Amino acid sequence: MIKAAIVGYGNIGKAVLEAVSQAKDFELCGIVRRSALNPPPALEGLEVVDDIRKLKEKPDVAILCVPTRSVEAIAKDYLSLGISTVDSFDIHSKIPALHQSLEAAAKEHGRVAVMSAGWDPGTDSVIRAILLACAPKGLTYTNFGPGMSMGHTVAIKAIEGVRDALSVTVPVGSGMHRRMCYVELEDGYDPEHIKRRIKEDDYFKKDETHVKFVRSVDDIRDSGHGVLLERKGVSGVTPNQRFEFRMSINNPALTAQVMVSSARAAVRQQPGCYTLIEIPPVDLLPGEREEHIKHLV
Amino acid sequence: MIKAAIVGYGNIGKAVLEAVSQAKDFELCGIVRRSALNPPPALEGLEVVDDIRKLKEKPDVAILCVPTRSVEAIAKDYLSLGISTVDSFDIHSKIPALHQSLEAAAKEHGRVAVMSAGWDPGTDSVIRAILLACAPKGLTYTNFGPGMSMGHTVAIKAIEGVRDALSVTVPVGSGMHRRMCYVELEDGYDPEHIKRRIKEDDYFKKDETHVKFVRSVDDIRDSGHGVLLERKGVSGVTPNQRFEFRMSINNPALTAQVMVSSARAAVRQQPGCYTLIEIPPVDLLPGEREEHIKHLV
Repeated sequence: MIKAAIVGYGNIGKAVLEAVSQAKDFELCGIVRRSALNPPPALEGLEVVDDIRKLKEKPDVAILCVPTRSVEAIAKDYLSLGISTVDSFDIHSKIPALHQSLEAAAKEHGRVAVMSAGWDPGTDSVIRAILLACAPKGLTYTNFGPGMSMGHTVAIKAIEGVRDALSVTVPVGSGMHRRMCYVELEDGYDPEHIKRRIKEDDYFKKDETHVKFVRSVDDIRDSGHGVLLERKGVSGVTPNQRFEFRMSINNPALTAQVMVSSARAAVRQQPGCYTLIEIPPVDLLPGEREEHIKHLV
Repeated sequence: MIKAAIVGYGNIGKAVLEAVSQAKDFELCGIVRRSALNPPPALEGLEVVDDIRKLKEKPDVAILCVPTRSVEAIAKDYLSLGISTVDSFDIHSKIPALHQSLEAAAKEHGRVAVMSAGWDPGTDSVIRAILLACAPKGLTYTNFGPGMSMGHTVAIKAIEGVRDALSVTVPVGSGMHRRMCYVELEDGYDPEHIKRRIKEDDYFKKDETHVKFVRSVDDIRDSGHGVLLERKGVSGVTPNQRFEFRMSINNPALTAQVMVSSARAAVRQQPGCYTLIEIPPVDLLPGEREEHIKHLV
C-alpha cells in the first residue's frame, strides 16, 4: 500500500481525494490544509492537520494540490522531511528551473519529486515525446479548449481586487489561443488597472487576451476542457505522417487522476526529480508489470 | 555516436536504412543479409555481410528487420555476442514469453533488448498505458486500418504455394476487424487448402477473415495504414472522460522510425528486456534530456 497525504483541499484536492478513494493500492494518511479547524463534512473521519509533521502516520508521498507558485517551497520542505512529492506545476517557461531545484532536493534526501504531472504539462507532454519519436521532423500543434484553465484562473484570482474569476482558453488553430477572462471585481477597484495586471502576467502576456467584467462568475463556470494535439511530420524520409490526439474531459478530475497515477510512479523511481516524459509509462499503473505487458502491449 | 547494424533488407530494412541516414546520432556499421553477394545499388558503399560477426566494427545495437518468427533466435544469438537488439515482434499473444526469454539473455550478457518496438505493438501500447493512467476504469478500443498489415502479410507469404499476398485490415468498430487477404497462387496448389491454412494461423484465427485469389497482388499494394485508438473512462469518480488517438501513416516508414528511436533508447537502459511501456519516452529522442524538458514538457 502506498501511504499518501493530500495537501490543499480546493478543486484539485477534492478530486484527488476522490481518485485516491478509488485506487486500491493507496492508503490515505490525511489532508493538510491551511486550517485544521471546522473541516467540511466530506472530510469527516479523515485526519485533517495544518502541518504535515502532525500526521500520525508519515506518508510515502504528498500530493500537492496547491497554487503553482507555492509548489517549490512546499515540495522542498517535504522532501527534506523524507516525503516524496507530486505536483502539477504548470508555468511552462519555469519548468527547467523547478526541475533543477527539486532534483537537487530530492537527491539530497533520497526521495522522488514528480513534477508537472497534470495533463498539460503532463500526459500531453508524453504524447508530444512519442510523436517526436515517430516523426522526428515536422510540427506539433497543441490546441487547448474551449475550456476553463485552472492555472490561468488562479493567477487572476490572486490579483488584489478580484472577487472571482474564470479564464477560458479558446483554440484559434495552429496552436494559437485566445484567453477570455471573466472577472468579478471587489468594490472600489479600477477595472483598467486589473485588466493591465492580467495582461502583463506570465500566464497571459504571450496570448491574445480579453478581459470581461461580469456580475456573476459562478453563472458561467463549467469544468469541461479539451485538447487537440496534432503532428504532421517525416518518419525517416517519408513525409505526411499524420497524428492526432484529442481529449474531452473534466479538467480537475483528469488532473487529479494523473497526480494519483504519478504518486504511484513516485514510489517506483530512483531518487531524483521527474517529469512524466522521464518515467516509464507502466510505472503509472497499479498492479504487476507482467500483467500490463500481457494486456497493453 | 550510436553504432548500429541493420539485419534484413526487406521493406522494413530499407526504411530503417532511410531513418538511420537521417539520424545524426547514428553511425551505420553495416547491413546483415542472407547473402552478401550482389547487393542492390542502394547499398553501394555500405558494408554488407551474411553474418554479424563479420562486420569490421562491432555494433552497439542491431535493428532486427526480420520475420517476427525469427526474432527470438537471432536476438538471443546477438545478445550473447554483446550486441543489444531492437525488434518489432508483433504476435501479441506471444509477447510475454518472448519478454521473459530475452530478459534472461539480455541480463546474462549485460545488454538490452527492446522488443515489440513498432507502432502496434509499440507506440500504440504507450498511448494505451497513458490513457489507462488518465482514466483507470473504462474501455479502450484499438481500431486498425484500413491498411495492409505487414505481419499478417508475411504470415500468408510463408505458406507454401503462395506466390504473393496482401492482408488488408478493415476496422468494423469497437476494436473489431475484418481481415481481407488477397493471394496470388503458385500453379498447382489447392485454393481451399491455402484458405484453410490462412484461417487457422494465429494471426487470423480470432478475426473475420476472407481470402480472395487475385491475378496480381502488386496492382493493389499500398503501404498506407492507420489507427483510431479510443477510450471512454472514469477519472476518479468522474465518468465520460473521452480520449482519441488517430494516425494516418506510411506503415514501413513509421515502424522503421520507431525502431531507430528505440535503438537510441536501447543504449540508455540498464541491462534487460523492455517493451516501449517500460522505457521513459524521453530516452527515445536524440540530444539532451534538459532540452526536451524545456521544449516538450
